[in-house]
Amino acid sequence: MSDKNSYVIDCLQYCNWSEKTFAQMREGGVDAVHATICYHEMFRETVINVEQWNRFFELHDNLIIHGRTADDIRRANESGRTAIFFGFQNCSPIEDDIGLVEICHTLGARFMQLSYNNQSLLATGCYEAEDPGITRMGKQVIKEMNRVGLVVDMSHSAERSTLEAIEISERPIAITHANPSFWHPALRNKSDAVLKALAQSGGMVGFSLYPHHLKGKSDCTLEEFCTMIAKTAEMIGVESIGIGSDLCQDQPDSIVEWMRVGRWTKTIDYGEGSASNPGFPDMPTWFRDNRDFPNLATGLRDVGFSQEETAQIMGMNWFSFYENSFGPQRPE
Amino acid sequence: MSDKNSYVIDCLQYCNWSEKTFAQMREGGVDAVHATICYHEMFRETVINVEQWNRFFELHDNLIIHGRTADDIRRANESGRTAIFFGFQNCSPIEDDIGLVEICHTLGARFMQLSYNNQSLLATGCYEAEDPGITRMGKQVIKEMNRVGLVVDMSHSAERSTLEAIEISERPIAITHANPSFWHPALRNKSDAVLKALAQSGGMVGFSLYPHHLKGKSDCTLEEFCTMIAKTAEMIGVESIGIGSDLCQDQPDSIVEWMRVGRWTKTIDYGEGSASNPGFPDMPTWFRDNRDFPNLATGLRDVGFSQEETAQIMGMNWFSFYENSFGPQRPE
Repeated sequence: MSDKNSYVIDCLQYCNWSEKTFAQMREGGVDAVHATICYHEMFRETVINVEQWNRFFELHDNLIIHGRTADDIRRANESGRTAIFFGFQNCSPIEDDIGLVEICHTLGARFMQLSYNNQSLLATGCYEAEDPGITRMGKQVIKEMNRVGLVVDMSHSAERSTLEAIEISERPIAITHANPSFWHPALRNKSDAVLKALAQSGGMVGFSLYPHHLKGKSDCTLEEFCTMIAKTAEMIGVESIGIGSDLCQDQPDSIVEWMRVGRWTKTIDYGEGSASNPGFPDMPTWFRDNRDFPNLATGLRDVGFSQEETAQIMGMNWFSFYENSFGPQRPE
Repeated sequence: MSDKNSYVIDCLQYCNWSEKTFAQMREGGVDAVHATICYHEMFRETVINVEQWNRFFELHDNLIIHGRTADDIRRANESGRTAIFFGFQNCSPIEDDIGLVEICHTLGARFMQLSYNNQSLLATGCYEAEDPGITRMGKQVIKEMNRVGLVVDMSHSAERSTLEAIEISERPIAITHANPSFWHPALRNKSDAVLKALAQSGGMVGFSLYPHHLKGKSDCTLEEFCTMIAKTAEMIGVESIGIGSDLCQDQPDSIVEWMRVGRWTKTIDYGEGSASNPGFPDMPTWFRDNRDFPNLATGLRDVGFSQEETAQIMGMNWFSFYENSFGPQRPE
């Protein structure tokens, strides 16, 4: 990825952020990261998370900058830093107030999932038994997200809701972190129908390195992962795919429990894990953390992608998507 | 005010905003208004007020724009609109959380009073019997306001706290709306010592048209008002003065009660009013609302200010102040 005008972008991480993780982004040549700043937090709690990031930007201004537009990636790259873009894995930060969509965008949010595993006020999550599709409020919120430039992310949403969101949204949407079901049929992975509709509408999918989303889990090989990417590219086109690693580095197991149960239940829910394996799974040896992004590029070249295609998948497709997605909606 | 590069700025209003008031700003040739968006509201309530303004900006984009930098005034003027800058008359929006200073700045806040009539977490208000000066948290918050570009406003603060704020702040502060005590000794008006220290530190005072701040109240004449301005200019220099009308147009009397009692007392407090005169006073005939800004310019010329000095007072001094105040602090 030494190409001067090529950027490496990871479209989802949720690390226990520190100077160490930021320094590793630089070591791995990662120019931009979409960082989750909310799982189940309400508005005021999400603001506290933004405050924490503001401190990171102040204290580590030699390593990271706050990313608001694609141009900030250019600026980060030129100054040897990483641009951090905020995203929500749930719609809890907007509570039941559509006015908070623009407020959150002003505070830096650039992606928001309409639902996280469960039914939300807007859409259905991928673990619900029934999926009645996008709600009344969901339709209004998608319109408002389109207006201000907050990207609809359906990574943890259910099939019908996802297909409807693709249809209803006037701007391309994203599945920031998931893999195809044809490769590994986890509830969180996506059907051919979803991936095709997503790509046809100009949307993007980011491939996940989270072991529960991988065929063979922690034992999945780099070649298997990259072969899956090649098959997906054949199906939906190389221009619609990127990386969304779902890296959860240095997090204690209490955090995977928080992701799964938040405050919506008083009993434990193991999600993709199990009673015998409740914690974070081990990462594949070839993708420990941000330092291993060059391994992904090598893996992609090894399964036959050209240098240009590899650059597209490693970040340039996300770069184009960011360029078109984060500003106000243009008149038709 | 036909000078091409001259802008008219009112550095405080709290109207019952509507298309009518915005159209009157245009009629009066007002290029920028510092609009109060909080008296006693906590953070979440203040965010709701920002949401309301976002709707105004969306619905009335032919009349107003959201002002964040002095350059937005240029942009507003060129497109025949008025730039609205947000300000707080109290520090209630930051609650007891210094991280909210930057959050509020990101949401558009450009002025914040450290206290409103009463003791706050940061400073003392002008109606307290004792003024122990800037608090421990106050010192930290001033530093943070300096860092991000949120202007310290001491309009409703007490004498010692105000003098200390001028001393502690590394950037010039403002008294956005008040008059000199030498002219009308209301508790809300400012001593010579405060006005001189303010001007010496590069700060600004905006003259108020609120009748309780005027000698003769609603009967004050334009000539008396402008003569007071001329005397103040002699004392502290013409470059440190501007207008902060405190226009509270179309507000019901319940609003002046809200300003005075907020939620800090269960008994009524009449502030500058009285039991027999509890409501909003009548505005002077020569300053009904935004349409009458040209009257002020005429009045200033009539008491002997040159065309350039009149332009300075009508907005260009505030313009320079805005240019230097709203961005991040520059290294010394």
